[in-house]
Amino acid sequence: MPEFRQNLVTGEWVILAQERAKRPHDHGAERSRCPFCPGNEERTPDPVLVVDGDAVLGCDWAIRVVPNKFPALTPEGTPTEGHVGPYSTMTGVGAHDVVVESPVHDDGLATYAVEHLARVLGVWAERHNQLFRDPRFKYVQILKNHGQGSGASLGHPHSQIIAVPFVPAQVDRELIRAEEYHRSRGTCMLCDLIEHEMADGNRIVYSNDAFIAVTPFASKMPFEMWILPMAHSRSFGQLDQGSALLLADALRAIANGLRRGWGDPPFNLVVHTSAPADGPAACASYHWRIDIVPRLVSYGGFEMGTGVFINAAIPEDAARYLRALVSADAC
Amino acid sequence: MPEFRQNLVTGEWVILAQERAKRPHDHGAERSRCPFCPGNEERTPDPVLVVDGDAVLGCDWAIRVVPNKFPALTPEGTPTEGHVGPYSTMTGVGAHDVVVESPVHDDGLATYAVEHLARVLGVWAERHNQLFRDPRFKYVQILKNHGQGSGASLGHPHSQIIAVPFVPAQVDRELIRAEEYHRSRGTCMLCDLIEHEMADGNRIVYSNDAFIAVTPFASKMPFEMWILPMAHSRSFGQLDQGSALLLADALRAIANGLRRGWGDPPFNLVVHTSAPADGPAACASYHWRIDIVPRLVSYGGFEMGTGVFINAAIPEDAARYLRALVSADAC
Repeated sequence: MPEFRQNLVTGEWVILAQERAKRPHDHGAERSRCPFCPGNEERTPDPVLVVDGDAVLGCDWAIRVVPNKFPALTPEGTPTEGHVGPYSTMTGVGAHDVVVESPVHDDGLATYAVEHLARVLGVWAERHNQLFRDPRFKYVQILKNHGQGSGASLGHPHSQIIAVPFVPAQVDRELIRAEEYHRSRGTCMLCDLIEHEMADGNRIVYSNDAFIAVTPFASKMPFEMWILPMAHSRSFGQLDQGSALLLADALRAIANGLRRGWGDPPFNLVVHTSAPADGPAACASYHWRIDIVPRLVSYGGFEMGTGVFINAAIPEDAARYLRALVSADAC
Repeated sequence: MPEFRQNLVTGEWVILAQERAKRPHDHGAERSRCPFCPGNEERTPDPVLVVDGDAVLGCDWAIRVVPNKFPALTPEGTPTEGHVGPYSTMTGVGAHDVVVESPVHDDGLATYAVEHLARVLGVWAERHNQLFRDPRFKYVQILKNHGQGSGASLGHPHSQIIAVPFVPAQVDRELIRAEEYHRSRGTCMLCDLIEHEMADGNRIVYSNDAFIAVTPFASKMPFEMWILPMAHSRSFGQLDQGSALLLADALRAIANGLRRGWGDPPFNLVVHTSAPADGPAACASYHWRIDIVPRLVSYGGFEMGTGVFINAAIPEDAARYLRALVSADAC
């Protein structure tokens, strides 16, 4: 049974999940061994959501959402706090979905048809909203680890959706900063940021009718990008079909730019969202975004000790390079 | 010229330091190329501190502290804030020392004589105190990145001391929690923690007359350890010669335990300290410590998005395993 434990010194929670140690690690291309490939469906738990396949995919499903077989958290029970000496604990209640994004083993963000990727994004939004409706869950993290070195253990294209029974302190700080900004200026922080970035232009990597991708002004990691909806939107769960197609277009262009620049680099995709309007992570002033973080460099003890990252890639230079890579792909 | 930039969304500062991209990366054993080996002293800037060598080392120096040739921060000038649209910046003023710990290229924590390692620790404390006396610097981070994958770029044994012109938010949160704990209970948080760990025993890895090494109750990473002075001490700068010998003993035992378990694994050593009593990071209730974090696994998008780490190694199991490795070495 997984357990939350709180770090007395920092206040941060960790998840201790022994089961995770047993998960298979396989970045190879051998379909017969892959638990996410068609024909091996019995090797995953029963799906919680399936999108039907079609003749093009040659499989009766296009997307499957299954509970993680080696979960970080368990969906049974009620989160219960405990104490051990000076320490605080909580039972490891939560949800841990795996989204098998495609039946095709070597497919991915760079190669999906835009319409297929839009369906994946729609599934993320649907599960995000379903999980936020469970009163036990206070935050939902959607993420994708791609490639060795990203934290991914399997090569078959998949993403993860993890619901936790509290608002993580790091998320809470963002929500509070967004609220404070809105209270003091009367505007949305990220709407202002987008306006500034569009006027400045130096950090724009890609844009279409609904989304803009920039290298953040204070990038922690080289070639890190933020993808932002240009129209104010509080929660990733508000993504509609039209926006999903445009977000898919942006993600596909960026994934191809990364491939063009670095082969097939490991990266993380991280959705930052706030809860539906009545939830504890709700924040009217929040503006959701997606971070794309290529894992090109490591970090060391300075970052661990201070939380301050040292980045040798100037965001304006990184954007210029990425812009060329991404637009080369568009040709 | 390096620059601090603040992330508008999180409030975190980053250091942008283009010069860092030019630093050499070499984990090989070729002495002629190594800028830290005897004979190549002219390849580093003039030292700010030197400990004389002796006949045993066969070199006229035993330890050299030099300004980093590819610094993350520059010691010239006064930190000056700036604004770019909605963003905040600060000139990259600070100090970035490299401590060349030994003239011997393949020496290290596991192989130093305890007396030599105690001298290295004494140098850390001396520079820590010197840098904190500069009124521009508000926090001093001492760290050691060991091995490929730890963030280290060179194999020759060295550590780094970085002074920054503000208290990093992550450090500030620890100091505030320690103060609040002390205010509400009248005791030091880590003194209480040590008392609990000694009574419990399940997470102890090593101890001697002055230091205890434990796996933290809420370990973020497998086989992470904290080394704590058993007597209350606010600042690493308070380390005296006797304590330095005992800390050296503990570090050496742990480094040998890691070697025994994993060959020569990459790890980070991170000192957590509070400033001298009159500085802005001073906190009477703080209790300094050293974190040792073996870099055995990666992290992914969940950790990035939430700050909550998923750890498959139960700290009590990790301690049992480490204890056997460390005590095997003591035999």
